[in-house]
Formats: sequence, C-alpha cells, structure tokens
Amino acid sequence: MNNQTIQVAIAGLGTIGSGVATVIQDHAAKGSDIKLVKILETHPEGQYAKPLYQRYPSLFTDNCQTIVTDPNIDVIVETIGGCTFAKTLVEEALKHGKHVVSANKDLLATEGKGLLELAQQSQKHFLFEASVGGAIPIIRLLESYLSLSDVQKILGIVNGTTNYILSEMDLSSISFKTALSQAQAKGFAEQDPTNDIKGYDARYKITILIYLATGIWLPVEAITVEGIDTLELPDFDYANRMNCKIKLIAYFSREHDQLQAFVLPLMLPQEHTLAKVTGSTNIVAVKGKYSDEISIVGKGAGTLPTASAIVSDIYKTREPVLPPPFRETGISYQLQPFSEYVFKHTLRFDAYDQPGIVGNIGAILAKHGINIYALEQLPQYHHYESSKDNVIFTLTLEACQEGLVQKAIAELNQEPYMAKPVFVLRELCD
Amino acid sequence: MNNQTIQVAIAGLGTIGSGVATVIQDHAAKGSDIKLVKILETHPEGQYAKPLYQRYPSLFTDNCQTIVTDPNIDVIVETIGGCTFAKTLVEEALKHGKHVVSANKDLLATEGKGLLELAQQSQKHFLFEASVGGAIPIIRLLESYLSLSDVQKILGIVNGTTNYILSEMDLSSISFKTALSQAQAKGFAEQDPTNDIKGYDARYKITILIYLATGIWLPVEAITVEGIDTLELPDFDYANRMNCKIKLIAYFSREHDQLQAFVLPLMLPQEHTLAKVTGSTNIVAVKGKYSDEISIVGKGAGTLPTASAIVSDIYKTREPVLPPPFRETGISYQLQPFSEYVFKHTLRFDAYDQPGIVGNIGAILAKHGINIYALEQLPQYHHYESSKDNVIFTLTLEACQEGLVQKAIAELNQEPYMAKPVFVLRELCD
Repeated sequence: MNNQTIQVAIAGLGTIGSGVATVIQDHAAKGSDIKLVKILETHPEGQYAKPLYQRYPSLFTDNCQTIVTDPNIDVIVETIGGCTFAKTLVEEALKHGKHVVSANKDLLATEGKGLLELAQQSQKHFLFEASVGGAIPIIRLLESYLSLSDVQKILGIVNGTTNYILSEMDLSSISFKTALSQAQAKGFAEQDPTNDIKGYDARYKITILIYLATGIWLPVEAITVEGIDTLELPDFDYANRMNCKIKLIAYFSREHDQLQAFVLPLMLPQEHTLAKVTGSTNIVAVKGKYSDEISIVGKGAGTLPTASAIVSDIYKTREPVLPPPFRETGISYQLQPFSEYVFKHTLRFDAYDQPGIVGNIGAILAKHGINIYALEQLPQYHHYESSKDNVIFTLTLEACQEGLVQKAIAELNQEPYMAKPVFVLRELCD
Repeated sequence: MNNQTIQVAIAGLGTIGSGVATVIQDHAAKGSDIKLVKILETHPEGQYAKPLYQRYPSLFTDNCQTIVTDPNIDVIVETIGGCTFAKTLVEEALKHGKHVVSANKDLLATEGKGLLELAQQSQKHFLFEASVGGAIPIIRLLESYLSLSDVQKILGIVNGTTNYILSEMDLSSISFKTALSQAQAKGFAEQDPTNDIKGYDARYKITILIYLATGIWLPVEAITVEGIDTLELPDFDYANRMNCKIKLIAYFSREHDQLQAFVLPLMLPQEHTLAKVTGSTNIVAVKGKYSDEISIVGKGAGTLPTASAIVSDIYKTREPVLPPPFRETGISYQLQPFSEYVFKHTLRFDAYDQPGIVGNIGAILAKHGINIYALEQLPQYHHYESSKDNVIFTLTLEACQEGLVQKAIAELNQEPYMAKPVFVLRELCD
C-alpha cells in the first residue's frame, strides 16, 4: 500500500454517485489521499448533479473515452446502473488499466464472470462491496473469510423495500397496494417497483453471494424467484396464528454436489433470527462447515452508507490484485431442479362457496400421496373483500417435494369451484 | 497468492490447538495445500494431545527452538495462552521469519503494539482473527472495511460465559452462584472463572477492537471494568420492571479527540439489539460516521469455529504483508477520565430498616445536585434472603456524570443504616 493520492472518476452522478462525491470530498478535506478528478454525466443539470456542476463545471464530461483514456485517473466508480452502457464502460476502463468500483448488482449478476476474468487479465481490481447489502460488508466478509471455511448455507433478507412492505402489511394490517404506496412516499420504493417486489433485485444479490461463497456464477434465470405482490392480508393472519412471519428470503445451500438456490416469500418461525428483522433492515446469515451461524445485520441501503462502501473499495484498490480465493474442491456442483426441493407448503384457496370443496381437495391431494398437516377456514374469510360468494381457506401440507405439490395444484386449479389459482407459501424443512 | 503448501507448526495442543490440528487434517484430506508439520507441546500425554501423540509421535517436540529455527515451517500457530512464554515464542518466531497466527487475547491486548511492530519489521504476518468473537469475523471486518469509514462507536457482548450466566439469572431466576455452577458443569465456564466474571476477558477484547477501529492501543488497565459477580436477582427484577435487560457490555466511542471505553454491566432497553442476544452468543455492533449501525452475531466460542478462524488466518499468510491501514487523522486522541462519563445510574441499597432512610438519602443526593428519576421499595425485598432486619430498595437517577454520583455514594456509604455499600448499575444516555 503506497500513499500516493488515488485519482478517482465517477461515472453517473445519480443519488449514489453524488453520495460518493460527498464522501470523497469529506475525506479529502480531512487531508486524505483520495481525489475526485472527473465526472462522467450526460445530464449535469439533473437533480443530483446540478449542485456539483454549478461549483465545479470543469470536472464534468459527457464523453466516456475522456475518462477511460485519461492517464491521471486510477479508479473509475461505475454508478450508472443497468447493463448495456455500464458493461461497455467497465470493459473499456479495465482494458485501459483502470481499477473499477461498482455498486451495480444487475451488471455483476449477469456479467460478473466475464468482467472479473477481464480484471484478472488486466491485473486490475473490479470491486463491488456496495452491490449487496449497502453498508453491510457482506461481500468483504464472504470474500476474505468465509470462502475458506466452506459456506454451506446462506439465508438473506437483502431487499429493504420488500422487507419494509412485508413488515407494514403484517404490523399495520394494510394491503400490499397501500404498503407499496407508503414505501414510495417515503422514498423506500421506486416509482417502478418491479425489480424489488418481483424479487429480481434479491435474485441478483443472491447470485453474487453464491459466487463469493463458491466461486460459481449461476445463471440468474436458473434461480427460481417469486415476488411479494401476490401476498394478501389473510396470509399474514394465517402465518401469525402458526407463530410465523413472512419474509422474502434469498436462499442458498450446498450438500455434496447439489446446490439449491431461490428467492421466495417464506414463512419463518417467529423465533428465527431472520423473522425478527423488520422494516428496511437487511440481514445475511451464513453457516459454514465448522462455524455456527453468523449473521450480519444493518441498513441495506441509504446514499451515504452505500457511498461509504464504495469509498472503502476505492482505498482497497491500493492492495495487490490477487487471484480469486476459491480452493479447488474437485467437485462438479449442480443446481438441483426446483421441483426436487422439499418444503412444508401452505396453500391458500379462494373458492366459490359450495358443498363438497374440502372433500374434493382432500381427495385430489390424497391421490398424489400428499398429507394435510393443518387446515383452517375462518368465518371472517367468507365474502372476503365484498366478494359475494367466495370463501378463503388455507391448508398446510406435510413436508414434500415441490414437484409433487405442483402436480396436485395443476389439477386443483382445473376444478370449477376455484375462483383464483391456488396461492402457495412455503416453509423450510430443517 | 501462490499455491505452494503452507507448512504449519502448532505451539500448545490444548482444546483450541487440537481443534486446529483437526481442521488442518480435514482440509489436507480434501487435497488442500496446508500441512501440519510440527507440534510444540511439553505434555503430549495431556487430554487433548494424547490421541494425536499416539498416532504421530514424530510430529511432537518440547523444544521451542526446534520450531522457530526449522526452515520448513512457514507459519506458527500460537495456542499456548498466557503472556510470558507465548510472548517469547511469538517474538522468536517473527525474528526467525515465520508468520504467526494467535488466538491469545491477553497477549494481544498487553503486547500487541510491540509484536505488530516486530511483525512489520520482519515483514511477516501476525494475525489474530480468533482472539475476539471466535468464529465471528469481527477482526477482519474492522481491519479491512470499517477502519476506513471512521468507526465512531462499538458496543459488544464479547464474553459468552457471562452472557450465559446473565441470561440464566434473568430467565430462570437463579442466583449468580447457581448460574456459574451450571455454566461450569456445561463447560461454558472455566474452573477458575475470574477472567470471565470480572470482565477482564471482555476488556482484553475491547482493547483489541479499539486498536482495529482507531490504530490506538489503550493500556488495558486504563479501561474501567466491573464484573457481573455482584449482581443479584433483585437487579434483574428491577431491570425487567424498567423494560430493560442487564448485559455485560464492552464499549468504545469517540467524539472529537475524546475516547470513551469501558466494560460494565449495563441496563439496556429491551428493544435494543444487544438486549435480545441471550445465552453464550456474542454480538458486536459498530457505528461508522457514514454508515448506520452494523451488527455481527454468532457463537463466540467453540473449538471448531475458533480453529476455523485460525485456519482462515493461516491461508491469509499467503497475502502480501501490508502496513496497518490506519489513516493519519492528525488528531491526538485522549481517553476521557471515567468520572466524566454521563450515565443514568441505578443504585441498589441494602439497608437496616429504620425510619428516615429515604429522606436522608434524598437529602444527600440533593446536596450533590442529583435528581431522582425513579424509586422503588417492594414488599418482597424486606428481609430478603432471610436477612432479618434488612430492606433492599432501588432508585434510578437522572442522567449525570459518574464522578458526581461517586461522591454522593462515598457519603452515602458512611451512613449507619447501610448494611452494604451501594451497588451501582448504569444505562447509556444516547
């Protein structure tokens, strides 16, 4: 580590990029050896860029080539987002001998493999601590420590928006729609919340965590994902009566040569560490072969915490570039098909009320060899939400394979009394 | 990072040392590039050493010079404990060009400064991840990440034995003595529990964490410490009625040029993250300047988790030796005298029951300008524990400086109605 000033360019001055500028300037004011020398931004009159543009117009450029070819720039911070232009920029930067620091989880999850290989070839750093968990240093943790102790399992709440919405639905008994509007009003959710509420953001993040734990880049689309936008208040009522909380869980495990990975809303027992994490807080729990479970908890987002993680990566570019730390295990890992995973399934039925429904459902499940563990039909869920002739009821199955349950559901959904397709919630079985 | 086999010697084959041998052999069996080549142990017939000694007698030596001079040894794992011989061994090892990995918190806290300087001079690693928090990688975390973001505060439960005892006293309403015996029977407490119950172990650990957060080695004795052996059941009753839990907290904060540090049993509000951590679990919560609070939670001890942390350090010796990562702040930090710290104090009185006590106490406190916040005298604490004419009562003061309260207590302790000196518990004021 030398003490020469690190010259930094920021590409993309939105909320995170401008936070990085703030933290760098604050460090610089305290005599630190890090300096902001260029900003790539095509809209310098935008909300976040404008204050800086007015004071330091000469810092700004709208030409990508300017920053990747400038010999004075050591590190390029990529806070553009998206994959198309960001990918080109990172490639060009690495090829021109710049270190790159990014918070771009989409880019990492989809292009990480190639970009990290390019970084190795160029003997430059491509660091991404801020891409998962904001200020929670889970990347550094997995990278520098846990990769050595054979991570067996990861459970994470890695999306603050959805955890806020789920907490509000549960604790304030408000609908998904109301909770989402609230989150948008408070700035916790974007105007287009698709990536968060459909679980795509969490899926990018678990893809990155799996890489750090195993060295394996799973194709993002291979990881089963379900969002939270189909959850309804009766699901939370039911979960509470079962002493559970509903959380959007990003999951990874490995056993022998089999990997399991998904992003799903799960019912977790109330006393589970992750069940207790409410609001926009994030948590990642990791179980290694020799270590008991370790959890790391903190706010997952926020401009300055995320910017601070990026600045920490900027300092880290001074360290030597090392090859990835994964040890060869000689095992060829396979992602197990989702249909083989075993859960305890809870099925919510929304049916046209008529005699014989429960008997019919029971018969169909029995035909597939599936046992019922719990069944509940409550008076308040007749004519739920002014629907005149509907009834909502819920049943929990004994642990069985996903594929078996899906076959039974496909058959159930054909029944004439079904007002909506069966809604499925799951519990882990270990 | 090269892939040559790392040749390791273990000095001291007690419970941790033998765990390290197990983990190394397990890694080696999977084709890893780490090999146990020597064991320094003067009592190879001891409980932990014997099984290995019987199978591999040639690995053993009782001569310190053998391992520090052996050119085939790359890394010496110091699991001897204590400071005298361990210090000599580490010095000799570093001088002879060996990397050293240690779990010895006493040694670190008292001799860390000199040993780390020696390691720098020798350009060798002196790593100690396992010295705090067992499998919780708090050292790595502070070192590689948080030191850059200006750690402002650390709150930790870093001693599993005392947290187990406090949880048992609280949840099972058993006395300190009974809880300690239980902990000893379960192997959570040593036969001589002094270091744990007096808070000395936690003080070593916070000394190390403060170094990692600031670059400053505080003299261990300068840090105020109180243990948990003077806590009684009425204290837990009172805390619960005040919606608090009692925890042994290792604390550090910095504001401007002032540092505060202590190890004290504190009353924490029930909803506080650290209040919820029960049993032998450890937690360290860190607040940086730009980041919200981050907590890391896990089992703090256990042979294999600790051994796993040591093995992780062994792999880390392959990385280049870097200078300490602390940035020069230009600020000359001072440890603020404990008498200037502000707490909300709770005083437990054990008095000979007679008229006028409360009035007299109130008058003495008023004379010192101290306001009473809460006062409680309960029927069940008359004649507590068959003491015939005693009464226990508790009062909580409004926030004020420690020194002021100590003056008032010194005066109170002179009163003829006092059966025992006043017992003080504290709450944080932020």
